[in-house]
This record gives sequence, structure tokens and C-alpha cells, in this order.
Amino acid sequence: MNFSSKLLENAVNEISQLPGIGKRTALRLVLHLLKRPKEQTHFLAKSLIGLVDDIKLCKKCHNISDVELCEICTNHNRNEEIVCVVEDVRDVMAIESTAQYKGLYHVLGGKISPIEGIGPQNLTIDSLIEKIKSGDIKEVIFALSSTMEGDTTNFYIFKQIERYEIKTSTIARGISVGDELEYADEVTLGRSIVNRIPFENSLQR
Amino acid sequence: MNFSSKLLENAVNEISQLPGIGKRTALRLVLHLLKRPKEQTHFLAKSLIGLVDDIKLCKKCHNISDVELCEICTNHNRNEEIVCVVEDVRDVMAIESTAQYKGLYHVLGGKISPIEGIGPQNLTIDSLIEKIKSGDIKEVIFALSSTMEGDTTNFYIFKQIERYEIKTSTIARGISVGDELEYADEVTLGRSIVNRIPFENSLQR
Repeated sequence: MNFSSKLLENAVNEISQLPGIGKRTALRLVLHLLKRPKEQTHFLAKSLIGLVDDIKLCKKCHNISDVELCEICTNHNRNEEIVCVVEDVRDVMAIESTAQYKGLYHVLGGKISPIEGIGPQNLTIDSLIEKIKSGDIKEVIFALSSTMEGDTTNFYIFKQIERYEIKTSTIARGISVGDELEYADEVTLGRSIVNRIPFENSLQR
Repeated sequence: MNFSSKLLENAVNEISQLPGIGKRTALRLVLHLLKRPKEQTHFLAKSLIGLVDDIKLCKKCHNISDVELCEICTNHNRNEEIVCVVEDVRDVMAIESTAQYKGLYHVLGGKISPIEGIGPQNLTIDSLIEKIKSGDIKEVIFALSSTMEGDTTNFYIFKQIERYEIKTSTIARGISVGDELEYADEVTLGRSIVNRIPFENSLQR
């Protein structure tokens, strides 16, 4: 690309380093920035700097937070005996939006993935085991996505905490509400039959 | 979306105001920013502020530039008697990358579009007509995209400059190099037959 301006070129190069954004998309975004009021772009830039400079991870659950201990960890109405293990903040947001879970979370910060060079030491697994050692936790719920990496991570953690005799569970796999049976994959459908639940339970809520 | 942090929420809101980026994509981008070194995001923010604060439009052709008169307008090797009328900087970049054009440009900054509320007064048409009035220009090439808005804009400008007795031309419409005839639309194929060129000319370059 032959840019007519260094400022334009810099901005396009910086934006195109973001995942999923190529040079053409970056140029389109930059031209949009030039069309709208300057102040909006100042707000954008400030919000990005504020984000990377001031954001914290909750000391207890490792979720993204503005303070040392996040709102969920400091909420006394939540059940501190249950911990739901998730990959990142998006999973916390997804589960919170169901309003069905009242326990605490533990954010791993990723999944074990040898291909991407992510091992157990890169995640917050040690901190989870420390929590469990302390004896306050009765149940650990595994809520990682059901991929090779997710299953590996679940199994690794399970092996580490097996000896502490606490209840472990995993979120149910099954047919999505509203989905047609005929289009479901066999593994999911198979699991949903093996792990069937009493009919009365499905009437709740 | 229930954010666990105001800083996170601000950044996601600001990013999701960009065209084609929704809240989920914005969140994915923000989490990427948090994983990479802080300095990179500082560079990004600085480049955006530099862009909106310091960028100029060339006084002559209205293209994006770092200085008052752009490199193309100040290049004495270019033919100052030919002006190519384009919509924005992307078109200048596209034509420049062909290395086939040695005249100057005139960047309109958009196309006439009543639906989007863009009239002739929002574009740099007056400035183009001033240039033509000055008498230094021999030919105007219309290189707007061939849409309803592009054709309207071409025609509007054509009507304004008709009286000045200068040559006007438009870029050729036809079958793309490498394309199969059978998949071409009828209008394009029709125009490529009506506006056929001497065979010898197609051997050039």
C-alpha cells in the first residue's frame, strides 16, 4: 500500500496488528475516525490507555476488575463453597447473564495448549489448588469449552485436586434449548441420553 | 453485557462504535490488548491521536497528507493538465499502485447521496470548478465507482464543467482481466463490446 501520509500509515499499521483486522479493514476504520468528531477518537485512545494501565486482576478469582477484589468475590450473598472454573472473563459474563449461578468463579486465563505453548504454569491452576487446600470449598464446577484443550485442562486440574475429596462436577452437555434433534451431532445427542435428568427437573424455571 | 470492570466496559463501548465492530468483537479485541505488552497499546493510542490531531488535507487535491500540499501535487514530473476525480484516498492509492497514471487527482471526499444527506456542497466540487476556471486543466477523468451515487456525482460535475470546453473522460468499464465472459453481467459485457478498442492497444504493457 502506498500511503500519502505517514500519520495515516502509522495508524493503519497499528490497527492492523489487532486480530482479524487486515490492512484494508484498518484503512476503512481510520477513514471513519477522520470523518467523525476528533473528541470521539480522543475518548477511544484514552479508554485504551486507561484499560492497559489501570486494569487489575482480582486477587482471589483472577477475573478482570477495577479493584483488588472483584464484586463477585466480595459479595456476601454468594455461596463461597462452590467455585466455577472458567477460561476467561467472557465465560464469567456469559454465566452471570443466566442468573442461575450464585457461587464464585476461578478464572484460569486460558487453557492448556501445547501447540500455543501454554502449559499449566501459565494458568492460575496453582492458585486454585491453594484455595482448595484451605478447605473452604465444597464443590468445583468445570465450565471450560468442550474441546481438546478444554478437556485436557479439566483432566489436569481434576488429577491435581482428586486427593482433596471435594465434589467435582462439569456443566451438562446436551441439545441446546430450541434445537432440532436431527441436526445435533452424535456425541452431544449420545451424552444427552446417557446423562438424562428426571422429567420434573426440566419443568423448573 | 455485565462487565466486571468499568475500564473494560468503556474500552468495549468505544471500540464497538467503529463500523462493523459489535460488542462481542470489541470484547475480543480488548482481551487481546490486555494480553500483549502495554507499550503496543500506547503506540496504538498515540497513533490514533496523532492521526486525528495532525492530519491535513492537501490544499490543492484534498487528499490526506501530512503537509499543506501533498507529494503528488508538488511533484513536477506529473502532468498538471490532467485531473482524475476520485471519491477518497483509497481510490488514489489504488490508481497509484497501477503506476499507469501520471496526472494529478481531485479527491471529492464522497459521492452525492441524498439518502445519506450528502449534497454537492458537502463535497469539494466547488474547488474542482475553480481549478477548471483557472484554465490550466485540459482533461478531467471521472474515476468514481459505477453506482447510482457515482453516476449522479459524475453527471452533476459534468453539467457544471461542460461550458468550459475541456476534455472529459471516464475510466473504461469492461470485463476484468482474467475473468470468464460467461459470468460477466450483461451491462458490463455490453459496454465492453460497444466501447471496444483497437486490438493493437490491448498488446501494450
